[in-house]
Amino acid sequence: MTQLKIAIQGVPGSFHHQVALRNFGEDIEILDFDTFPSVAKSVVTGEADFGIMAIENSIAGAIFPNYDLIDRFELSIRDEYYLPIGHQFMALPGQTIEDITEVRSHPMALLQCKAFFAQHPHIRLKEDTDTASVARDIAAGNLKGVAAIASSIAAGIYGMEIIASDIQTIKNNFTRFIILQKEPLKPSTSVNKASTKVTIQNQKGGLAKLLTLIADNEIDLSKIQSIPVIEKPWEYAFFIDLVFENYTVYKNTIEEIQLNFGDVKIIGEYLSRK
Amino acid sequence: MTQLKIAIQGVPGSFHHQVALRNFGEDIEILDFDTFPSVAKSVVTGEADFGIMAIENSIAGAIFPNYDLIDRFELSIRDEYYLPIGHQFMALPGQTIEDITEVRSHPMALLQCKAFFAQHPHIRLKEDTDTASVARDIAAGNLKGVAAIASSIAAGIYGMEIIASDIQTIKNNFTRFIILQKEPLKPSTSVNKASTKVTIQNQKGGLAKLLTLIADNEIDLSKIQSIPVIEKPWEYAFFIDLVFENYTVYKNTIEEIQLNFGDVKIIGEYLSRK
Repeated sequence: MTQLKIAIQGVPGSFHHQVALRNFGEDIEILDFDTFPSVAKSVVTGEADFGIMAIENSIAGAIFPNYDLIDRFELSIRDEYYLPIGHQFMALPGQTIEDITEVRSHPMALLQCKAFFAQHPHIRLKEDTDTASVARDIAAGNLKGVAAIASSIAAGIYGMEIIASDIQTIKNNFTRFIILQKEPLKPSTSVNKASTKVTIQNQKGGLAKLLTLIADNEIDLSKIQSIPVIEKPWEYAFFIDLVFENYTVYKNTIEEIQLNFGDVKIIGEYLSRK
Repeated sequence: MTQLKIAIQGVPGSFHHQVALRNFGEDIEILDFDTFPSVAKSVVTGEADFGIMAIENSIAGAIFPNYDLIDRFELSIRDEYYLPIGHQFMALPGQTIEDITEVRSHPMALLQCKAFFAQHPHIRLKEDTDTASVARDIAAGNLKGVAAIASSIAAGIYGMEIIASDIQTIKNNFTRFIILQKEPLKPSTSVNKASTKVTIQNQKGGLAKLLTLIADNEIDLSKIQSIPVIEKPWEYAFFIDLVFENYTVYKNTIEEIQLNFGDVKIIGEYLSRK
């Protein structure tokens, strides 16, 4: 059997790599890309069977440009995955925290560990584009005095020593990932969550009426983000995630929105994993 | 007279630097920091008089962690600024686009120029932490074949040649910046916009009722973002920007929200610059 090809952002050992393994098992081929647009493109061209993207962090909120990418590349969300994020403080073996003068990591990871670094003011924070790739670069360059914040998988892959474990300020820290595919979704009544993009006329109170309709149909709103529609400044768009118990009621609600408020694009229908 | 000290993220020539000059004039001292948390900290400690942060881009949406930073550091928004963003494609002088094999820039800048790079597939895209610092590094390292996407101010400062001008896909591209201060705001009836954080009980339809109240008072919603409150999973919070014509009506609405829905934190009251 041919291995599934899974596109991820980041190097081996990244959080995206972890989600790929947990979601599709060990017997997959990982296609790793520098950027989220490259991940989206590889799914669109068929180079990858599926793509994985972080979309929302329980502390720092939405990783917003990714919604935009999914929308523009016309991809579909087929599933979601909540990964508990543990940030490990790691460096070349044999060093203590006093030897470390600089830590490099993704801005989101630095943000999530700020209480830890406030207690170690001798360590300079430097933003980088990734978590795991810093561990790789420290190992490759034999860089003493420099630390990474990354996963324990990354520590194992790149031979780094964990100096302090789970240094994130809030311990109950999840990142929501979504699994993307190119093909449009097949309708299925076994789902209970939908990701949508709703475009309404920018009339005063339009959003209030829309949300009242949703609430009246006993549908929960698990996420909302406004997006400026710059080509059409009189319009207003929102990414809205809905959680429902009855698929038919949800479908009727979408129809009612189409009739009364404007355009609804279904980006994904799937089972809530929360 | 002592010069005002303005904290920015990024190096000289960055978009934040442009906003500092346009908002406070040329006679200022720039304190440049690697990260947004460092900018927030410098305002909190009084090292800087004011801080500048990008908060929202008209194409790619909210720069979300910055809302979180402002909230956690208890800073106040005193003003906003809309900067038209022109992305210039630049490299060491004397090269043509055919000589360029790699472009490095901030992921947001790369995203905003993706139509341009789709026409030049020989150029590899590499995410970096900033726009202007890439121009600085190319100049310092005399790196041939590598390009930056940055402002024309950065091209001037670092002696780069602009190979292609305004390469962003959508020409009408603004980034919204906010000006931060440490002191709480003085009430003023001359403002017409407010940035708030509203925390409501996660009852079905709670947000719909809240927005109906706002609309009934003729107040416009210019932005809404849900934020998971992970320490208290039964609560739900939103960053909401309100635009109003009458300050008293706005104040009464805030009081009514406090009475009926939960907590409102005013992060800033200022004049809309849109």
